[in-house]
Amino acid sequence: MRITALAGGVGGARFVRGLLHELREVRGDDDTQVTVIGNTGDDITLFGLRICPDLDTLLYTLGGGINEDQGWGRVGDTHTVQGELAALGAVPQWFGLGDADFATHIARSQWLGQGHTLSEVTDRLAARWGLPGQGVRLLPATDTPIETHVVLDDGEAGERAVHFQQWWVQLQAAVPAKRFTVAGLAQAAPAPGVLDALRGADVILLPPSNPVVSIGIILGVPGVRDALRGSRAPVVGVSPIIGGAPVRGHADACLATLDVEVSAVGVAGLYADFLDGWLVDDADAATTRGLRAQVRTLDLRMRDINGAGRIAGAALDLAADLAADRTPGPTA
Amino acid sequence: MRITALAGGVGGARFVRGLLHELREVRGDDDTQVTVIGNTGDDITLFGLRICPDLDTLLYTLGGGINEDQGWGRVGDTHTVQGELAALGAVPQWFGLGDADFATHIARSQWLGQGHTLSEVTDRLAARWGLPGQGVRLLPATDTPIETHVVLDDGEAGERAVHFQQWWVQLQAAVPAKRFTVAGLAQAAPAPGVLDALRGADVILLPPSNPVVSIGIILGVPGVRDALRGSRAPVVGVSPIIGGAPVRGHADACLATLDVEVSAVGVAGLYADFLDGWLVDDADAATTRGLRAQVRTLDLRMRDINGAGRIAGAALDLAADLAADRTPGPTA
Repeated sequence: MRITALAGGVGGARFVRGLLHELREVRGDDDTQVTVIGNTGDDITLFGLRICPDLDTLLYTLGGGINEDQGWGRVGDTHTVQGELAALGAVPQWFGLGDADFATHIARSQWLGQGHTLSEVTDRLAARWGLPGQGVRLLPATDTPIETHVVLDDGEAGERAVHFQQWWVQLQAAVPAKRFTVAGLAQAAPAPGVLDALRGADVILLPPSNPVVSIGIILGVPGVRDALRGSRAPVVGVSPIIGGAPVRGHADACLATLDVEVSAVGVAGLYADFLDGWLVDDADAATTRGLRAQVRTLDLRMRDINGAGRIAGAALDLAADLAADRTPGPTA
Repeated sequence: MRITALAGGVGGARFVRGLLHELREVRGDDDTQVTVIGNTGDDITLFGLRICPDLDTLLYTLGGGINEDQGWGRVGDTHTVQGELAALGAVPQWFGLGDADFATHIARSQWLGQGHTLSEVTDRLAARWGLPGQGVRLLPATDTPIETHVVLDDGEAGERAVHFQQWWVQLQAAVPAKRFTVAGLAQAAPAPGVLDALRGADVILLPPSNPVVSIGIILGVPGVRDALRGSRAPVVGVSPIIGGAPVRGHADACLATLDVEVSAVGVAGLYADFLDGWLVDDADAATTRGLRAQVRTLDLRMRDINGAGRIAGAALDLAADLAADRTPGPTA
């Protein structure tokens, strides 16, 4: 079986880790190949180094190197480099980077500077984290450098745009975003393998990642949304909203910017043109009537890897049922 | 008084530190301004980061951050970044870089990438290390990127050129160098302030730095040698060779490549067109007859800051005597 998942950072990474646990440990399935298409809209150049927060969180989480408490960065990392950069007056200082994490960005920047694509660089990083050995392929959504910017209302001063990371990390998304713009997105090409991974998948999964600035960016890469619409595989998503609030992060602020209701139904509406199955939390069971996608309800809190695996398993089960419904029976 | 010194890495840095100690602590001279012109031929780009080994050794030594045992790098530094780069397969691994040291190179590379000159970047780094407060100005010999390469005899395979650092650090200068070439040197311009610092100096000092790949590179920047020749200031040097062997490093291998005798006299010959005074070790007292420069002998081992200060003081005394000889007396 071939599973393809679109993923942002923390939520996507934990879901995929749960999926692998469910496949390999619970179901004893060592054959299914998992392709993860990671968001690159969060990417940012700091200190002259190219940083890919979502890809890194996926790498570190799946490779066992993540700082679980933060959800990003390396476990047990030190901060000598950042301390010295502060002493040197190098800016910005609002983006926390550990020493081992810096090494990832240094190597990536070096390899990009040598002319390698982000896909090639990500392959190298994935090898260091043992993803191929787990039957996982990690693809950036695009090799074209793209960056999500957030337009803020500066009152009498008018508008100003900041990098997504500045809004998300430094401003904690507390300043209302008027709109998002993604530099480079309209001209971006899907990274090699992305469209094939969608067209050739048996199951396509949407983890509970941010529907606007993570999944939404991947969907905005020209060709990706059409590939989802045209895929023969059932597309099953997991709601990132439980009881009207995001499980993690500032998805509510992002949805508000798009005038989309902060609810499981609101998010499903963003995927309406290709979503076949939708997992919502028990708390939201009563709200989902009228959705085209087939809905199942369960406890959507990913408290640990087993919990994430249980949710991923439910997504696989729903996908299997959807696929069975599509297949003509023996009497047809 | 204005003192200008040409300097390479460890030897030059320790000499200048001794000079400052002699001036400020021993002689109570807080007014004399010291300009250090640092060699940039050792500069190298590793992991996509611009590294200036000699400038960094000068900064760390004068700023009190040097690893005294190594002579380079930061005291007490950790190696998390380098360890992770090794895990990632990023090369090369033969150049040891600590985490705090990496921050210097990251900041420098960022600032250079923003369009600042190496002089401007060096100013910022010097501020972090408190050089202005010590009455010291550190100038790179040139803002033009230059790199010393070493041509090696590869036997039947012919010649191959390696970066100076590879020859010096990885090969420990154990492979004979056929010749040195300095990429960019012929087109390099002296950094702002370099020629003025030589023309306007009251004393010009040559610390016991490598005469070929440190001082020699600075002298090779177009205009620098002429400025030394034409300077009104006495030029006093300190022999880096004691009893036929370099005090530190592989100056013997460098001199051999130029077919220059590994001796205090041999090195003085490289400076013959502008050298006015020459400090040699007591061990070499008998060998210096016939030199145009005025010779003084003393113990040239820089065992500690006091020893280095004593040598610097002798250089200043010799310069003062040379200057007095040049000044027409009251009866002239």
